[in-house]
Amino acid sequence: MDTTSGIFLVLDLTGTFAFALSGALTAIKVVRLDIVGVVTLGMLTALGGGVIRDVMLHALPPATFDDWRYLAVAASGGLVAFLFGRGLDRWAMPIVVLDAAGLSLFAVSGALKGLELGAGSAQAVLLGAITAVGGGTLRDVLIGRIPAVLTSGLYAIPALAGATVLVAAEGLGVPELPAAVGGAVVCFVIRMLGVHYDIDAPGPPGFRPAAS
Amino acid sequence: MDTTSGIFLVLDLTGTFAFALSGALTAIKVVRLDIVGVVTLGMLTALGGGVIRDVMLHALPPATFDDWRYLAVAASGGLVAFLFGRGLDRWAMPIVVLDAAGLSLFAVSGALKGLELGAGSAQAVLLGAITAVGGGTLRDVLIGRIPAVLTSGLYAIPALAGATVLVAAEGLGVPELPAAVGGAVVCFVIRMLGVHYDIDAPGPPGFRPAAS
Amino acid sequence: MDTTSGIFLVLDLTGTFAFALSGALTAIKVVRLDIVGVVTLGMLTALGGGVIRDVMLHALPPATFDDWRYLAVAASGGLVAFLFGRGLDRWAMPIVVLDAAGLSLFAVSGALKGLELGAGSAQAVLLGAITAVGGGTLRDVLIGRIPAVLTSGLYAIPALAGATVLVAAEGLGVPELPAAVGGAVVCFVIRMLGVHYDIDAPGPPGFRPAAS
Repeated sequence: MDTTSGIFLVLDLTGTFAFALSGALTAIKVVRLDIVGVVTLGMLTALGGGVIRDVMLHALPPATFDDWRYLAVAASGGLVAFLFGRGLDRWAMPIVVLDAAGLSLFAVSGALKGLELGAGSAQAVLLGAITAVGGGTLRDVLIGRIPAVLTSGLYAIPALAGATVLVAAEGLGVPELPAAVGGAVVCFVIRMLGVHYDIDAPGPPGFRPAAS
Repeated sequence: MDTTSGIFLVLDLTGTFAFALSGALTAIKVVRLDIVGVVTLGMLTALGGGVIRDVMLHALPPATFDDWRYLAVAASGGLVAFLFGRGLDRWAMPIVVLDAAGLSLFAVSGALKGLELGAGSAQAVLLGAITAVGGGTLRDVLIGRIPAVLTSGLYAIPALAGATVLVAAEGLGVPELPAAVGGAVVCFVIRMLGVHYDIDAPGPPGFRPAAS
Repeated sequence: MDTTSGIFLVLDLTGTFAFALSGALTAIKVVRLDIVGVVTLGMLTALGGGVIRDVMLHALPPATFDDWRYLAVAASGGLVAFLFGRGLDRWAMPIVVLDAAGLSLFAVSGALKGLELGAGSAQAVLLGAITAVGGGTLRDVLIGRIPAVLTSGLYAIPALAGATVLVAAEGLGVPELPAAVGGAVVCFVIRMLGVHYDIDAPGPPGFRPAAS
């Protein structure tokens, strides 16, 4: 049990760092920001999804805000992006991989926390997806961009799939660790396949929007 | 009592479906979205106002998130908009009517929930309006549009009027059902008159904004 | 104790009025709004930061929403901006001063409330800054502007500095009133120096964003 918690903490903090880094780098590319803006957006990307989840679950104050390790790791990710933003720009692929890892870890840990606090199955799946995509969505709103999750590629779907695998596995009595690993792997693989083959989720049939 | 609850549930779910449908259709017209984006924005329009209300009232987890019927009805509305978006575009007027119905039902049910949970009169009126316009405002923020409630036509005012009628009637000892029907009718009539005569709320006196 | 509370209430309501006024005026300059939009954005600027703080602290329902005096003062500020927006435009400097006063008072009162409700030091500093800049950030998101706190001048930094002074002084056993005054003065002075000398927080080293 203690070992499992330790593994989850390491994975969760890794996801937090990855999201802070990729979130801050995305923001730098779109808007001219000062140091406060870069670090703020990095922290918001990394911690925002968890805060929304905890509000919905009534698990307040939010765990990621209450625990200084999450704050420190998220701030570090934002600071690294601020200091080495130019250099990191060339590491596009590692950042996509780290972001996909963050997505997978948060989808699974969000759904798990939902189940632990008594949410229904559908709610737990939604909470996993909200945890995974919520922070990036808040960042996109602040920098004036249509959130990527609404328009582009496979981003919410792998998170929903990974959370569904976890919830289904728990329902079938699979122990927590293999269920979590299975959900995270499913999310990660779908996400990376989407990136590699540039797959988009289907758009409305025969419908062209006025502006795009 | 049980019958009243049943009536409210039917009306509330009708409002949820109407908002999910009209919210998703509005989003499709403005931004190119995939299926995840359309359904997400439909659900957010239908459920977002209630979630904000429940956070303000400390009624967590939010009722509309906790009850699978709201989630299912909201997702269905978004899905119908996704599948039949082109066809529904010709049904502009029924959608305006449904949206006005949602506005009226949510203004009244939001104010009522505020009173039941001990909020003051002014707070209950504001909660009614927040429930009614909150979801559409979140949707507009996500698709990069100035929220309609801030700039155009009579939208917040009918919601405030309907909620005020309900709160005043309850204060005068009117039973719940006629008070709710009265408030909803007032909101609906003002909203439809505003649409029909294209009435705008007054702008600042003698003031032209730099950009518009 | 009672006198201290009285002083705080007066200062807090002064900050609320200042933020409602400056927030609504900022909104009027950017977007064409009707009376509902102006008053809504004034109230959101004045009360939004406190609501976010209270959600994070699990102090629900939010104090500024529960207490009618805050609602009334915030609505008055928005209404004054709506009615006299043209005239007030010439009073640019008093508004900057009032806004800086609101920033200072909210940074200190936000951090203080965090400490009182048991938040850690780093969390209390962040809560002070969130209280101070949160409302203006929500307003900027609604009117489709990149939040000023992310991009321009010294705005978050004075709030963080003021909150840090308060938290450090409390940790050293300084009584509440001088600690609060000291924090507010530090925030106010840094903010006004930033305005006067047009100082920006540093941007990322050697990095030009694609768009700006």
